[in-house]
Amino acid sequence: MKTQVAIIGAGPSGLLLGQLLHKAGISNIIVERQSAEYVLGRIRAGVLEQGMVDLLREAGVSQRMEAEGLPHSGFELAFDGRREHIDLKGLTGGQGVMIYGQTEVTRDLMGAREASGAITIYQADNVRPHGMKSAEPYLTFEKDGVAQRIDCDYIAGCDGYHGVARQSIPADTLKVFERVYPFGWLGILADTPPVSDELVYARHERGFALCSMRSPTRTRYYVQVSAEEKVEDWPDERFWDELKSRLPAELAERMVTGPSIEKSIAPLRSFVVEPMQYGRLFLVGDAAHIVPPTGAKGLNLAASDVSTLYNILRKVYTEGRSDLLEKYSAICLRRIWKAERFSWWMTSMLHRFPDSDAFSQRIQHTELDYFVSSEAGRKTLAENYVGLPYESIEDA
Amino acid sequence: MKTQVAIIGAGPSGLLLGQLLHKAGISNIIVERQSAEYVLGRIRAGVLEQGMVDLLREAGVSQRMEAEGLPHSGFELAFDGRREHIDLKGLTGGQGVMIYGQTEVTRDLMGAREASGAITIYQADNVRPHGMKSAEPYLTFEKDGVAQRIDCDYIAGCDGYHGVARQSIPADTLKVFERVYPFGWLGILADTPPVSDELVYARHERGFALCSMRSPTRTRYYVQVSAEEKVEDWPDERFWDELKSRLPAELAERMVTGPSIEKSIAPLRSFVVEPMQYGRLFLVGDAAHIVPPTGAKGLNLAASDVSTLYNILRKVYTEGRSDLLEKYSAICLRRIWKAERFSWWMTSMLHRFPDSDAFSQRIQHTELDYFVSSEAGRKTLAENYVGLPYESIEDA
Repeated sequence: MKTQVAIIGAGPSGLLLGQLLHKAGISNIIVERQSAEYVLGRIRAGVLEQGMVDLLREAGVSQRMEAEGLPHSGFELAFDGRREHIDLKGLTGGQGVMIYGQTEVTRDLMGAREASGAITIYQADNVRPHGMKSAEPYLTFEKDGVAQRIDCDYIAGCDGYHGVARQSIPADTLKVFERVYPFGWLGILADTPPVSDELVYARHERGFALCSMRSPTRTRYYVQVSAEEKVEDWPDERFWDELKSRLPAELAERMVTGPSIEKSIAPLRSFVVEPMQYGRLFLVGDAAHIVPPTGAKGLNLAASDVSTLYNILRKVYTEGRSDLLEKYSAICLRRIWKAERFSWWMTSMLHRFPDSDAFSQRIQHTELDYFVSSEAGRKTLAENYVGLPYESIEDA
Repeated sequence: MKTQVAIIGAGPSGLLLGQLLHKAGISNIIVERQSAEYVLGRIRAGVLEQGMVDLLREAGVSQRMEAEGLPHSGFELAFDGRREHIDLKGLTGGQGVMIYGQTEVTRDLMGAREASGAITIYQADNVRPHGMKSAEPYLTFEKDGVAQRIDCDYIAGCDGYHGVARQSIPADTLKVFERVYPFGWLGILADTPPVSDELVYARHERGFALCSMRSPTRTRYYVQVSAEEKVEDWPDERFWDELKSRLPAELAERMVTGPSIEKSIAPLRSFVVEPMQYGRLFLVGDAAHIVPPTGAKGLNLAASDVSTLYNILRKVYTEGRSDLLEKYSAICLRRIWKAERFSWWMTSMLHRFPDSDAFSQRIQHTELDYFVSSEAGRKTLAENYVGLPYESIEDA
């Protein structure tokens, strides 16, 4: 097979990049290790920045999101029994976020791809990129036991943290930045009405809690747990009790509980590799960087990488501007580091750290107190939460 | 002897409190372990917040400061070869800081006290507060070998971190918050013209540097050094070379060097005790809290404590509002913790930490980059630097 851009991974990044390229007349093939059902089964993020909403519109896959998604113009920080509203719209001059599950984004993108006739190869084994440093890179893989090859101009590694793309780059050419947090998030999905119209991020001496949602009838709630915790030790009842114990009384009292339809523990990690490019292989999203989920930046960062790579490739194919290719990594990393900072900061400010001394705990508390009491502080919170502007590919 | 308020310590806090009380007709005696010359010989801070400037005016000791002090409406952050101006005036709606050395503040206060005829006892040995939990507290000390006693209504402990006031409070009634930073500041005072009209805070991979000043002809410069460093190993030439190596080239090139007239190494520490009160003994300034000097908050925090205690005591003596006495600590600590946070944050963001990993270093860099690039971020910097508003004694 032959195509212009070979994409590894049919998660939201790979599918969104494929859709944008396809609409721009740039041929692409997506190769995915798992089945479509498996990909859709992964429960992930659900808070989309305006930039990502705009990009989904540009890709022509925003119809259902605009009908079913929940635009949020604020969120809440709860601590010391206080409930502090962060008015995103007022603080940023009109911006907000869209509540719409990653699973739904993926489903919409899969539908659009199927309708477009572009090729997606699911359940491809042993996917490997080759010749990244040459002018003729290619992918190899096996499908139903048969070896296959895709010749291409460029390869996009949209295959996540555990994927093959980053691992195919010689380790000594990558600089790794990493922080593993000493706790995880135990999350459940339940068909219960959300306890509040907006997301509630709670700092409590028992640990962090988050009340999120996917729709007016489906909730996504989290509690911070120790890194060693096992999901088997958390029957639903224990989860609900723990969640309620960490929320302001008026929220705990009106919390509607119900059976979980998904329950899992996710570790928290910050991770970045530099550069995000190796010859003609470009790393996109989780393949190059991970953020802890506090601040809801993971999927959104992947979307801004997609936007950057798409805009560069379009310039390459329409104007022959191949000089921009070498700037991909630097352009992406400017925005990535700011989102890494915000995610690290939100995580640091809201969680209980097991080894934290009295001074650190009080500083952590004061940080939250200061940022919500100061108009300028609230603005920094808001502008990061709605998402800093996408970097221009021409300013590099 | 008998007085209304006995003040331990004739540094700027004790003298300022004494002057304010005296003007309000509240009698007070200051007892100081050292000589006046020794107190004046200590080289300390030199950046006064608007709140402290106003308080010095209220105390009637602002004349020379207003003639000789340098009003600054901004400062500079230097990193990555960039020079970022923080326009305090523009960002805070008109506020700035006053450059005027602590030594000069102390000299002015000593002059005013002498003119007022209020008693200051220097070189008092073995000062001890007694009966703090009773209605009849008193101080004992020895002067020229003769035991003395001052009976009073209240005792103000303005005797600094190493003073007797805090040490006289049973340790099990105090909660201590502390952070010792793994580095110090090597500072010199020199009669050279400042390299820039404004203060320059520089982050460099060799470590932090600060270009400060006391007047248009006297500079106060600092470089971060390791905690084990000895001042004997830093001849002037080495200091100037090191300082220049950490500054943007255009500053280094125009730096005028000269012989140091003072040179010393100060450790960096964050420290708070709670509460700041024990019966009729009130801790003021460094006796209760220390900040690292990054951000210039130490003397200014002492001034806001003085303001709070003075306003409470005035209400006590003029309106019999003794209910406010119990609120002293809580009122002070609200502002203190915010200044502790800012000082910790400026220190964390600008210094090189010996054990810092690649992720922390990049986050530290991004923090600085974000806060100077964002209008809201610059505002948080500016509003903290000029000083958050004094707390009202009535809101407690």
